[in-house]
Amino acid sequence: MTNEKSNNEIHNMNFQPENENIVEPKQRIKLIFEPRSVILIGSSKIIEEVGMASPELFQNIAANMKKYFKFDFQVIDIEKMKTVPSADLAIIVLPPKESLVWAELTMEAGVQAIIQITGGFEAKIKEQYLALAMKHHVRVLGPNTIMGIVNPSLGLNTTFEPDLMPKSGNISVISQSGGVGAALLDWATFYRIGIGKFIFMGDKMDIDDINVLDYLAQDPETEVIAIYMEGLRDGRRFVKMAKEISKKKPIVVLKGGVTSESARRALSHTGSIAGSDDIFDAAFKEAGVIRVRDIEELFNAALALCKQPSMAGKRVAVVSNVGGPAILAADALVHEGLELAHLTDHTKNIIKERYPGVDIINPIDMIADARAERFGFILEHVLNDTNVDGVMVINMLKSCFFQPEDAKVLPEVVEKFNKPVVDVPVGAEDFQLVTNLLIDTPIPTYDLPDKAAKALRVLYEYSLVLGS
Amino acid sequence: MTNEKSNNEIHNMNFQPENENIVEPKQRIKLIFEPRSVILIGSSKIIEEVGMASPELFQNIAANMKKYFKFDFQVIDIEKMKTVPSADLAIIVLPPKESLVWAELTMEAGVQAIIQITGGFEAKIKEQYLALAMKHHVRVLGPNTIMGIVNPSLGLNTTFEPDLMPKSGNISVISQSGGVGAALLDWATFYRIGIGKFIFMGDKMDIDDINVLDYLAQDPETEVIAIYMEGLRDGRRFVKMAKEISKKKPIVVLKGGVTSESARRALSHTGSIAGSDDIFDAAFKEAGVIRVRDIEELFNAALALCKQPSMAGKRVAVVSNVGGPAILAADALVHEGLELAHLTDHTKNIIKERYPGVDIINPIDMIADARAERFGFILEHVLNDTNVDGVMVINMLKSCFFQPEDAKVLPEVVEKFNKPVVDVPVGAEDFQLVTNLLIDTPIPTYDLPDKAAKALRVLYEYSLVLGS
Repeated sequence: MTNEKSNNEIHNMNFQPENENIVEPKQRIKLIFEPRSVILIGSSKIIEEVGMASPELFQNIAANMKKYFKFDFQVIDIEKMKTVPSADLAIIVLPPKESLVWAELTMEAGVQAIIQITGGFEAKIKEQYLALAMKHHVRVLGPNTIMGIVNPSLGLNTTFEPDLMPKSGNISVISQSGGVGAALLDWATFYRIGIGKFIFMGDKMDIDDINVLDYLAQDPETEVIAIYMEGLRDGRRFVKMAKEISKKKPIVVLKGGVTSESARRALSHTGSIAGSDDIFDAAFKEAGVIRVRDIEELFNAALALCKQPSMAGKRVAVVSNVGGPAILAADALVHEGLELAHLTDHTKNIIKERYPGVDIINPIDMIADARAERFGFILEHVLNDTNVDGVMVINMLKSCFFQPEDAKVLPEVVEKFNKPVVDVPVGAEDFQLVTNLLIDTPIPTYDLPDKAAKALRVLYEYSLVLGS
Repeated sequence: MTNEKSNNEIHNMNFQPENENIVEPKQRIKLIFEPRSVILIGSSKIIEEVGMASPELFQNIAANMKKYFKFDFQVIDIEKMKTVPSADLAIIVLPPKESLVWAELTMEAGVQAIIQITGGFEAKIKEQYLALAMKHHVRVLGPNTIMGIVNPSLGLNTTFEPDLMPKSGNISVISQSGGVGAALLDWATFYRIGIGKFIFMGDKMDIDDINVLDYLAQDPETEVIAIYMEGLRDGRRFVKMAKEISKKKPIVVLKGGVTSESARRALSHTGSIAGSDDIFDAAFKEAGVIRVRDIEELFNAALALCKQPSMAGKRVAVVSNVGGPAILAADALVHEGLELAHLTDHTKNIIKERYPGVDIINPIDMIADARAERFGFILEHVLNDTNVDGVMVINMLKSCFFQPEDAKVLPEVVEKFNKPVVDVPVGAEDFQLVTNLLIDTPIPTYDLPDKAAKALRVLYEYSLVLGS
């Protein structure tokens, strides 16, 4: 029996909807993400020559779990202990052979789920591991997950990087690559992006992307699913499942291995057969999956989809306190295939009456002395305009009178409408200052008009997914 | 005499190479950027209803000049003083009529150059201002420059934003928009980009883009010229001059008002006739000007051009300590029209002999435990490969053994070759930590492979400019 075959058998057995075993394994998968008791199994002595297992790695994961995890946690050093207690979840950071021995011990002790951090497993050991898991009805993430799982709301953090803990939120991330996953986690933590669950897939011996997608679809905490993918083992099942999920929860995908050159590397990296990029494009389109081009776009899109409603049409108004950046915003919107909304005379007249100095063509330049009151008034009437599907607000501080606190008016106005609004405090320090005020509100912020235009295009694309 | 006409006359008079007056006015333009004595003229009482003049603005500029300027500086409050001393440069922050009066007083006192910060000048006042300037052979930047000039190496900073002072360096920036200029200055300061001269053009009553380009071409401190442009008054002259300069100093342009919608706003904003975007594309190409799409790309390109040699061909090697990001790097390079270099067997054998575990296909995955020694060895042999035109290094910290200090090996190796190398510590905190170590070296850093690939494409484009 090849490893590949046993893999498929497990999947077929557990995840065909008609199978009566479906409920229990699903609950066990849930314990990978939401355990109430965790044991970490490693060695204070073993250092792998090739491979990750080391006392340092073991200690680092232990330190993270002790620091963050809100429930029962116990460390098992195999040099000192020979038995394991029962738990919802075991994290194993040992070389392959030792992992197998201790995986069996944990299964026998009643552990329900395993995150196998370390990798380098030969096919034969994987087969034995998988056979054990099947026998004990234990679900396994990995091997070679490298960083495992992060669930900020429970404080579950099986990574070995100190302080790499994002804040709790509603974007869940699946990474097929340890390195890209680490970069994504770094990005999310640094830019304070709220994370539901963060999953490093590893070698997918047992649990695969489809299982995780299925879990995230049910997870009330997850509102948007962001995926870094190099390939798919079962494209048809992915499309079928994603099609269903994407009507309720947006799915954003960054696909690596797009070119034939990089696909060659992807094959060597994760064994993924990347396949023609056009096929993926077509599959993503059918699945209602929104495709992005890089890590920054992945989070920028997820942020917009998590915070704002979809955009029903292409007509965008720009409400700005500076002229030049408003011009760049108009360029960026048109570049993204969106349109500049033509405001109704009604809207123009209302604004003209109150602010005679403002030149009301879209993009609207409200002039450098605009503060919260003018921003609020004009934004409200622009959002109320039937010709407007969404708004890009530009509020620079430098060279303007706008103060960071003025940004508080934005969520107040925006909550009255069901149209998307994104905010652009153009620049670097300006972006930080305004973002600090808006980060826990439903207004996403971007540092450049181009990124905000892309986010609006994604919100428009998602309205097409919902409408299809 | 229309304002436009008088403008052209001045230009023709001063800047035809055959004109014998050429030396003196050029030296006076130089005093706009490199004065050794400066007076700031404003009012502690006047607040313009429409317009910028205010005691606060006046005080803010005074505070910046006092804080940073390394030579003689004096503040003239017109409410208290009725005469002005002589100086190389006067900065005027008064309403139009008062500005005219005080401009004349300064000219009579022997001031050589004026930065007219405030705007709102009617055509008639501009005519009078210009006539005075011609009579006294004084050069004027503005009116409506808003932020004026920043020259970090002399501490000249005529902006009214506190602490908006970039570090000294070799990238000079020209902005036709106050708002975009403010965002660029914010960006440069925050990301510690070394600035030669920073120029806010304003209304270009006297000094225009061509004059400034001419100055920057001669300025030994300026190595790269970055321009935000909405339109051109004399496209043919720009192309002719840029064509000459770009063979010695790269010129990067971000053009706003690309779409017909935004061009309409640009017309209202700075009075620029934006013209068809295709015409600009053709003109930039002829001029050897490298065009970029947003503010971030402008600085990313300028940084690469300032720090690294041009790239003679399209063949790029990726040297990485992580697999997934290396795949994204390969995707990005091909997306930018570059190619993945095929390493010679000679190079492969040398690397294989020293590091048998490394799988030597490009992108090269050196494995997560690569430190300075392995990075240095492999980078050196890859740079030495005749099939390689440039290298993208990827050195992640998260999930890897690489430490920020290890990055020091990069400039040591890179200086031995005349091929471009860009560095990508993929992520956010990782990017910051490595950038802190490399910021004063010739290695530019980017947070994502996509941005580094764009930078390499720019270095390739510039080799075409040099070769044409």
